[in-house]
Amino acid sequence: MQTAPQTTDQDQPAVDMKDIVALCKRRGFIFGASDIYGGINGFWDYGPLGTELKNNLRDYWWKSMVTTPPIGPDGHPVQIVGLDSAIIQNPQVWVASGHVGGFSDPMVDCRETKKRYRADHLVILIPSDDTPWIATIEDDEDFLKARLKKVGRGKSLNDFTSKNLTEIDLAEYPKILAPDAKEKGTLTEPKEFNLLFETGIGASEADKTTAYLRGETAQGIFINFKNVVDSSRVKIPFGIAQVGKAFRNEVNPRNFIFRSREFEQMEMEWFCHPDEAQKWFSFWKDERKKFWESIGLTSDNILMRDHDADELVFYSQGTCDIEYKYPFTSPDFGELEGIANRGNYDLTQHQEHSKTKLEYLDPERNNEKYIPHVIEPAAGLTRGVLALLCEAYTPDPNRPSGVYLNFDPKMAPKKAAILPLTAKDGQPEIAEKLYLELREEFAVDLDIKQNIGKRYARQDEIGTPYCFTIDQQTSEDGMVTSRERNTMAQERVPLDKVADFLREKLK
Amino acid sequence: MQTAPQTTDQDQPAVDMKDIVALCKRRGFIFGASDIYGGINGFWDYGPLGTELKNNLRDYWWKSMVTTPPIGPDGHPVQIVGLDSAIIQNPQVWVASGHVGGFSDPMVDCRETKKRYRADHLVILIPSDDTPWIATIEDDEDFLKARLKKVGRGKSLNDFTSKNLTEIDLAEYPKILAPDAKEKGTLTEPKEFNLLFETGIGASEADKTTAYLRGETAQGIFINFKNVVDSSRVKIPFGIAQVGKAFRNEVNPRNFIFRSREFEQMEMEWFCHPDEAQKWFSFWKDERKKFWESIGLTSDNILMRDHDADELVFYSQGTCDIEYKYPFTSPDFGELEGIANRGNYDLTQHQEHSKTKLEYLDPERNNEKYIPHVIEPAAGLTRGVLALLCEAYTPDPNRPSGVYLNFDPKMAPKKAAILPLTAKDGQPEIAEKLYLELREEFAVDLDIKQNIGKRYARQDEIGTPYCFTIDQQTSEDGMVTSRERNTMAQERVPLDKVADFLREKLK
Repeated sequence: MQTAPQTTDQDQPAVDMKDIVALCKRRGFIFGASDIYGGINGFWDYGPLGTELKNNLRDYWWKSMVTTPPIGPDGHPVQIVGLDSAIIQNPQVWVASGHVGGFSDPMVDCRETKKRYRADHLVILIPSDDTPWIATIEDDEDFLKARLKKVGRGKSLNDFTSKNLTEIDLAEYPKILAPDAKEKGTLTEPKEFNLLFETGIGASEADKTTAYLRGETAQGIFINFKNVVDSSRVKIPFGIAQVGKAFRNEVNPRNFIFRSREFEQMEMEWFCHPDEAQKWFSFWKDERKKFWESIGLTSDNILMRDHDADELVFYSQGTCDIEYKYPFTSPDFGELEGIANRGNYDLTQHQEHSKTKLEYLDPERNNEKYIPHVIEPAAGLTRGVLALLCEAYTPDPNRPSGVYLNFDPKMAPKKAAILPLTAKDGQPEIAEKLYLELREEFAVDLDIKQNIGKRYARQDEIGTPYCFTIDQQTSEDGMVTSRERNTMAQERVPLDKVADFLREKLK
Repeated sequence: MQTAPQTTDQDQPAVDMKDIVALCKRRGFIFGASDIYGGINGFWDYGPLGTELKNNLRDYWWKSMVTTPPIGPDGHPVQIVGLDSAIIQNPQVWVASGHVGGFSDPMVDCRETKKRYRADHLVILIPSDDTPWIATIEDDEDFLKARLKKVGRGKSLNDFTSKNLTEIDLAEYPKILAPDAKEKGTLTEPKEFNLLFETGIGASEADKTTAYLRGETAQGIFINFKNVVDSSRVKIPFGIAQVGKAFRNEVNPRNFIFRSREFEQMEMEWFCHPDEAQKWFSFWKDERKKFWESIGLTSDNILMRDHDADELVFYSQGTCDIEYKYPFTSPDFGELEGIANRGNYDLTQHQEHSKTKLEYLDPERNNEKYIPHVIEPAAGLTRGVLALLCEAYTPDPNRPSGVYLNFDPKMAPKKAAILPLTAKDGQPEIAEKLYLELREEFAVDLDIKQNIGKRYARQDEIGTPYCFTIDQQTSEDGMVTSRERNTMAQERVPLDKVADFLREKLK
């Protein structure tokens, strides 16, 4: 996370994450997984509207990558093909990628509760007197305040100095009180904890092998590089794109769907000649920023953050995060997408471990043989959904719902709602006829009964750009009332022109 | 599997599954997962074209269920909403559903090789003389013949009588030779083997819980029934639809993607009043048959098979399988979709285990309170892809490729290919301009270089309905040559009318 640029607009009303989470449950966007069983930490289910929103983002990304990829620096469209690889692969894949050895976080255990914490997420609050040092979770202000209230003996945050746990020698802090401990709860030295979920494959005990749920979709692309080159008419430079679930056994899943244990990614691996890697790195940075802006994220809420040299993993030749100002990071930013120049690290690793040649013979360069370099724009699909929800959430005391979701129409789960005012005058029949016409082209909602104010409130809260109301007059003059979501402005539209109206407005 | 009706056309050329698998790899539909690492049994990766084909089927199912659901028996459109639940849920979900206790197959172990087999997939071949009894895998004729050749001592199939392993007492067969055994390899008594993949969640050993990868997508719907009713404007009868991955630790994954360990389902749970369950069961049987026929599966290759009373699980009030005549089952049929009248079994189980009321208060029935009954059309997305590939595979000695894929245009990964004949006369520029126009509306392929015969062969083998060739004349008369996949018939079409032409032909 990074401090906001000074130009950021400080006047917009602060939005509380709790309100967004509550709306998501109330209106059927996102539920805690296994809700009726008391839930399961770090897993989420997408309800009817959340699923449509997520599908809209997924399909728009796919269109921007695979169906209509951008025009490259030479003026010609670039080439990208799709892929959908298995979640479970031969375990050697994750040895080669480094995930089995190194995909881990430094963890400390509480000696009292036996609970485990990410060392780099903990701070120690050190008081000036003899009370214990309190370990607590960084960035979670609510937690921090609640903790202080419980064990801080009347002290406020100002009475403490704080140190990050990774910067101290724990042996020097014997009076520590771990985040969930009651009595002493000192912490062990940090050790590495692997994030891959394990499972066992095979029926017979003799054959049973340990395998892993993929920690990212990217490796499924690297191991298919040769298959794609051999079977498809692609030439360097080209990309392979994939959308799919990934799994990480996070220690502290938190911030709604931001850090969950099961999530979805949209990753594209762009294979190019080593000499052109830096050019394509710049190209994809620009393209990806444009993508998020084109679906409604405002530039004030987006930060392009180039990693400093000391942040880069050893093989990376450059990484830029696209960060979003989520309510729980504001005024700072949190990751939404990472764009990395990975060199030829991944293909080299898989070539070595699989003993399969992954070199490319380039007919455009006098049959030069080389291992391509890779530019990877890796976006979070579920984080994208979160950013869209946060961006759209607009408190508005001037309407009954008190809030509306200001989705870009491309992303809105429903493009229009059809609302007959009463069950009289053939209104439901007219409504159903209009619904059957519109649904062939647009995702539309037909909502027959209920107080019209409540129905408008629902459509505001789910972000439907247009409502069309059928009333007593409709059967007489063949007109319906259109209501625009953001302005609540109403106008009369001929029944047989509603599709044209919508097509024009949503363009 | 079931014997084919006598009416089935026996004249069509037999298709060998091996050829379909080879084409899938050669052209980039489906690869063995972790190919470069020697693979992993039971897992598959979908290449560029397989992904597009699978997405087309997924999206068409979603449209048929969620966006434009069918007109019900009362003449009004039915209501179905979407859902996307997590693969990993609270483990209690799978206890309640019966999967932890009962989702299992009867297994026997070989005492020599320690390998494990599904008892109901094994037969014993009993010779008339003193040679050992040979256990082998039913339905796999190649395996059976190879086995006989290896250990049958010159005997043919006719020299044996066969018995299904589940019908005999293994203690009476001490001379058995298990499928992969060399010396004796007698088999243990059958015992149950659970098909759920296990994993462990949580960072700390104290907190770590066993969880399961879902064995079906259906349970994610049942546990969200209450969330959906509370958050969405749905009234009984209504449906909840979901597409997603499921996992089963199959003992003998086989027949390409037919029986794999990771696969995709398209399931819809239809909630209705108990009195109406039988009516809706019939309704969905009809609708689902129409669905598969509408995307090109011919009725000769589809069998609607109602389960006999003794085949039904105890809570089922009726099940009908939609079976397809795959090359490896032909002339018999194998499962593609199951439509089940599940009564109120699932919601009752979850109500009991979660202690959460899952009754529905029906305003249309004087506020009658009841647990809805469920009709479940549960289709295999990946099995659907397999059926589409098998149906489309058409050997044709009259064309260079020797085969073409006769996809319904709705399902074809590419709707058209644009092929400039040479790099001269501005042909590549004209081709690119046409590509940029068409790709906004259709999935199109731009293939610039190579012998035109080879390029046609590729498009035939990937099932592209139309090719448009740009030649020397195009720059003079503004016409391109259209070539239709099945007939190979060619006609000249004006460049600026290609989009209209395609729109008309694909309608």
